[in-house]
Amino acid sequence: MKALVIEGGFGLDRLQLVERQQPTPGRGELLLAMRAASLNYRDLMTVSGTYNPAQPLPLVPCSDGVGVVLEVGDGVRGFAPGGRVCPIFAQRWLDGEPTRERLRSTLGGPLDGVLAERMVVPAESVVVPPEHLTDVEAATLPCAAVTAWTALVTEGQLRAGDTVLVEGSGGVSLFALQLALLQGARVFAVTSSEEKRQRLLALGASEVLSYREQPQWGRAVSKLTGGRGVDHVVDIGGAETIEQALRAVRIGGRVSVIGALSGAGGPPSVLPILMRYVRLQGILVGHRRSFGQLSRAVSAHRLRPVVDSVHDGLEAVAGALGRMQRAEHVGKICVRISDDATAPAGAGGSEELR
Amino acid sequence: MKALVIEGGFGLDRLQLVERQQPTPGRGELLLAMRAASLNYRDLMTVSGTYNPAQPLPLVPCSDGVGVVLEVGDGVRGFAPGGRVCPIFAQRWLDGEPTRERLRSTLGGPLDGVLAERMVVPAESVVVPPEHLTDVEAATLPCAAVTAWTALVTEGQLRAGDTVLVEGSGGVSLFALQLALLQGARVFAVTSSEEKRQRLLALGASEVLSYREQPQWGRAVSKLTGGRGVDHVVDIGGAETIEQALRAVRIGGRVSVIGALSGAGGPPSVLPILMRYVRLQGILVGHRRSFGQLSRAVSAHRLRPVVDSVHDGLEAVAGALGRMQRAEHVGKICVRISDDATAPAGAGGSEELR
Amino acid sequence: MKALVIEGGFGLDRLQLVERQQPTPGRGELLLAMRAASLNYRDLMTVSGTYNPAQPLPLVPCSDGVGVVLEVGDGVRGFAPGGRVCPIFAQRWLDGEPTRERLRSTLGGPLDGVLAERMVVPAESVVVPPEHLTDVEAATLPCAAVTAWTALVTEGQLRAGDTVLVEGSGGVSLFALQLALLQGARVFAVTSSEEKRQRLLALGASEVLSYREQPQWGRAVSKLTGGRGVDHVVDIGGAETIEQALRAVRIGGRVSVIGALSGAGGPPSVLPILMRYVRLQGILVGHRRSFGQLSRAVSAHRLRPVVDSVHDGLEAVAGALGRMQRAEHVGKICVRISDDATAPAGAGGSEELR
Amino acid sequence: MKALVIEGGFGLDRLQLVERQQPTPGRGELLLAMRAASLNYRDLMTVSGTYNPAQPLPLVPCSDGVGVVLEVGDGVRGFAPGGRVCPIFAQRWLDGEPTRERLRSTLGGPLDGVLAERMVVPAESVVVPPEHLTDVEAATLPCAAVTAWTALVTEGQLRAGDTVLVEGSGGVSLFALQLALLQGARVFAVTSSEEKRQRLLALGASEVLSYREQPQWGRAVSKLTGGRGVDHVVDIGGAETIEQALRAVRIGGRVSVIGALSGAGGPPSVLPILMRYVRLQGILVGHRRSFGQLSRAVSAHRLRPVVDSVHDGLEAVAGALGRMQRAEHVGKICVRISDDATAPAGAGGSEELR
Repeated sequence: MKALVIEGGFGLDRLQLVERQQPTPGRGELLLAMRAASLNYRDLMTVSGTYNPAQPLPLVPCSDGVGVVLEVGDGVRGFAPGGRVCPIFAQRWLDGEPTRERLRSTLGGPLDGVLAERMVVPAESVVVPPEHLTDVEAATLPCAAVTAWTALVTEGQLRAGDTVLVEGSGGVSLFALQLALLQGARVFAVTSSEEKRQRLLALGASEVLSYREQPQWGRAVSKLTGGRGVDHVVDIGGAETIEQALRAVRIGGRVSVIGALSGAGGPPSVLPILMRYVRLQGILVGHRRSFGQLSRAVSAHRLRPVVDSVHDGLEAVAGALGRMQRAEHVGKICVRISDDATAPAGAGGSEELR
Repeated sequence: MKALVIEGGFGLDRLQLVERQQPTPGRGELLLAMRAASLNYRDLMTVSGTYNPAQPLPLVPCSDGVGVVLEVGDGVRGFAPGGRVCPIFAQRWLDGEPTRERLRSTLGGPLDGVLAERMVVPAESVVVPPEHLTDVEAATLPCAAVTAWTALVTEGQLRAGDTVLVEGSGGVSLFALQLALLQGARVFAVTSSEEKRQRLLALGASEVLSYREQPQWGRAVSKLTGGRGVDHVVDIGGAETIEQALRAVRIGGRVSVIGALSGAGGPPSVLPILMRYVRLQGILVGHRRSFGQLSRAVSAHRLRPVVDSVHDGLEAVAGALGRMQRAEHVGKICVRISDDATAPAGAGGSEELR
Repeated sequence: MKALVIEGGFGLDRLQLVERQQPTPGRGELLLAMRAASLNYRDLMTVSGTYNPAQPLPLVPCSDGVGVVLEVGDGVRGFAPGGRVCPIFAQRWLDGEPTRERLRSTLGGPLDGVLAERMVVPAESVVVPPEHLTDVEAATLPCAAVTAWTALVTEGQLRAGDTVLVEGSGGVSLFALQLALLQGARVFAVTSSEEKRQRLLALGASEVLSYREQPQWGRAVSKLTGGRGVDHVVDIGGAETIEQALRAVRIGGRVSVIGALSGAGGPPSVLPILMRYVRLQGILVGHRRSFGQLSRAVSAHRLRPVVDSVHDGLEAVAGALGRMQRAEHVGKICVRISDDATAPAGAGGSEELR
Repeated sequence: MKALVIEGGFGLDRLQLVERQQPTPGRGELLLAMRAASLNYRDLMTVSGTYNPAQPLPLVPCSDGVGVVLEVGDGVRGFAPGGRVCPIFAQRWLDGEPTRERLRSTLGGPLDGVLAERMVVPAESVVVPPEHLTDVEAATLPCAAVTAWTALVTEGQLRAGDTVLVEGSGGVSLFALQLALLQGARVFAVTSSEEKRQRLLALGASEVLSYREQPQWGRAVSKLTGGRGVDHVVDIGGAETIEQALRAVRIGGRVSVIGALSGAGGPPSVLPILMRYVRLQGILVGHRRSFGQLSRAVSAHRLRPVVDSVHDGLEAVAGALGRMQRAEHVGKICVRISDDATAPAGAGGSEELR
């Protein structure tokens, strides 16, 4: 089988398509024929060597994918060949609290990721994606959508009528927008261009501000709520945005801190955290149970993820990462790995495991 | 001013329209010109003397109403004449946990209720209802809608994609259906007649079973979820329904126990509670903060409560209670108290107090 | 190796000591030399055939034990031979919410239990018990102590200064008493005899009532709190006690429903649940994370479990179960399986897995 | 009656003892004869004009005190003359979530504080302190102890066996140490001098590090937990300590951000918040219910607050503030206002209101 690996050093130009022995599922495991993948900024950093320079190589990068069950190992209940599943990001984080051990079990580094034709995963480390989604759409869920769900629902306990602020038009922010609407919230957004603004409005945002025109957008957002402040900010900009985020949030409100991998050095001042009784919660994707809940919600509402572009074949990954690097995208950049009919996809897995 | 009182003994025939001195708002209080009220089963029991036989008389019955601010007492911030407000059910339960003292501060017994032309309440004990609602619609919220919100949202932390079961077509159940949909849940219902079944489907229920045709509806509902069980049951039938409710709910699920005032004597067996790790939560309406959140949610979605019928004037209350007694209604039975233009209703209260 | 099995039918007289092939640890598994076990009422019911008459036989009964690691399977991190560990009750419930699948993975039925000289378990399904405990003491923890912890801490969020009521002097109740004291709570108890009363007072109970002398002990307990009611009742009597438990608990308080396996048929009335805003929570032991937290708490305070009696060798199990059946015990009935020095016990497992 | 006021401008030298008309309790209010007060850093800042330069003057400063009921206004239940009570910090925050309105109702600015011989407060805005405390000890509770309780218990849900890190030997830190021990936690501390180190050990800290000797104390504390990190940090140093606090806390742990009024400008980097799934929670004292729970816990354990020094009479306040300014204290600096026997103190208030 073919796999894409980072080998001999980091860099987009070090991605190589190699031939590997097809793995065999052991007890409790599944062999998957991978169908599609989607890219996260973390993948770009991993390939570039900036995410974890100590990462041993070779490594199959990329954490988010979907595949079809080819073989079922001994002792596995609830799965059969032909079922479609998504491996979860942190393979050993099934429920409850994060631990070091659980957070070290992530695909696409330190564990091999999804950019291979075949992949073996524990049956307990997958989720059945919604049936109405295409392979490419299903592949967008494992990190970006689960992160948004964890922030807003699992940790954030969002209520109908709450207000949410999202930043930009990347994968997590668009899912946060869509999922907040499912929960009955109203969503404000800040973005850079008129084109993206229109896109966000079309997806259901109540108001979209330009952070170019209004560098003090924190206060401006607060005004949109009558001065009360928003209930929840999904902050993905870290050092560059946290100060405005803390101005936008209400007294007693919540700020989810996500993926702040760039510009990590700066503020926030702790004073507004204190004086406004704000909760800042770091979010690192989430557990299998959250993914299962998300999947049910997406199914019930027949939600469709926002796909920026689809790139064909493992050989197209470097180009796709380049698009991410140039920040040209709105929504998820996806890769079609294979749609050979060895394993026609059906509904995968038992209800128990969704 | 005129007020309706229970005097000289209990019974629908003891309701009397009397002339009373108009009250004066003290420090921190509001004088309201009452516009409309809605009836709850508790009001029927109170008038009949079965809710609290030791209730001192005379008593102005009925807890749910809406009025317009006529005068503002000293020291009140955020309200002005003309604003429209709903007194909250438990006047001293503003937030947090219930206590005996808070649960004793309820309108319509032991405190005088809303069936009067004028009423004085503490400014901190009101909520501004959604602007898009008529007076009659606004009057439906204080008990039935807040109860459903407390059960599903405040205590229940309902998520998009969750499944909810409601029983019948009374006020709490219809609000539970509507509010669960706002939160992105799927709703199942059980009811008695085909007519009510159609009504529940039109309101958005995914499936509606007949408890006449399927006396073992607990299991039938569980099957609708693939055998997993529903995440949340809003149980309003008490002894008559709790056994089926416990069969319908999933392992680790929740049952809100509401208004089980009839047939209070019987089971449930505690065995299913234990063996399925179920949580049973008694619900007694809720606090002002929940009402404020509900109001924001109803506003954001321009939700319209289900009004069964509108009865004109305080003198029509006995007839309206009779309709409730005969269980002819679907949704809330309402009473128009006055729409004289002494105080034209506008948006009431500051954002802070909503 | 030797194992005790129920074979050919249920009944204490059907327990047989048999010779079995020593199991081999697979990937991710541990081979344990079992040292000690403790008995729960569930074990008595299982052997008698009343817990699950459909349980396939033969079965190694009993869920609670402690062993020493003899061999470590491939891919296991953090364990080494000689470490002492307790298998967890529900082998697949590591964290988070209960599910059907997780609750079906329990030792001593449907899975083989701990009454064998050797046992293989997944490395992720054990907890390292506190070092200061003897083997027999360590064996008391997996069900009774974890149940009390789940009820009071994981689900109950007990605070210093809270009041707790426990019933009787069985394993769960004594652990609930001891663990509530660790959390800074005050504990009341009801029991039958003066001897048990003295024992409970010696363990730290503030007041102990006799349910023989005060059949209406619910109200009596409430009086001990100045009429406010206790914050938390750990109810183990089910149908026989729940009514009094609901009288003892405060408005807004919690009742943990545990092990109500006898007299399952009866009340409670739902009326007090409703009118007092009470939460009833069914408790089925708990997950690995709760066990780990419990273990840390027991270590930090050098708490010693209450051991009723120690019975020597697998052949003594039937006699030990007889003692339970006659309800002669206070605290945990234990069985010493082996203390051969093949594997001298040391501190087991890495910090990560505690 | 006499009162101490800031008048004509800010500064310790602008504190003046003035004669004022004794206030009269209105409906729902209590007249208190103040007995004692304790000082917080906020009081020093308020007097200096750095806390809120826009604060209108004159102002009676200082939020924490205890008094004895002299007169009871109309409509007050549960209080009688002679009862001893502490006004709560945020007079309108009785329970639930903070709001702007509630956080603006604080004593010692914007509302007049406790440094007066007589004071009128709403009966719903007081808590009955533990009976075993002296007046001076009771006066230490309203801010410092409630803040520690809110951080660790109300928001932090501390469990027996958890580990807590406290910084320094100020009022909040010492209460955090004492209250964490009540909840069964183990406590680490960092401080500056050997003398303070011995004091902290005597109060029950497991280990105390010197931040002078170990400027990288975050890592050192983490090592004390076997590298796992502490469950909870009570951070009172803001910009100066947050970076080390984030190194000390475990993955998924909590940092309470308290009183970070000095050096407000700097970090923290959000990267560790994110990558360790940490929750930062701003804490601003807390509500009446938390104070009531704290009071019960302190009573049950007969805990004694750490009093640094007692200064006699309102005229001694400037000197007491000077001591705080020079940071010479360990524990709470207190002021005795009066112990005249006009109102001999007894147990105050009904159980309902504690």
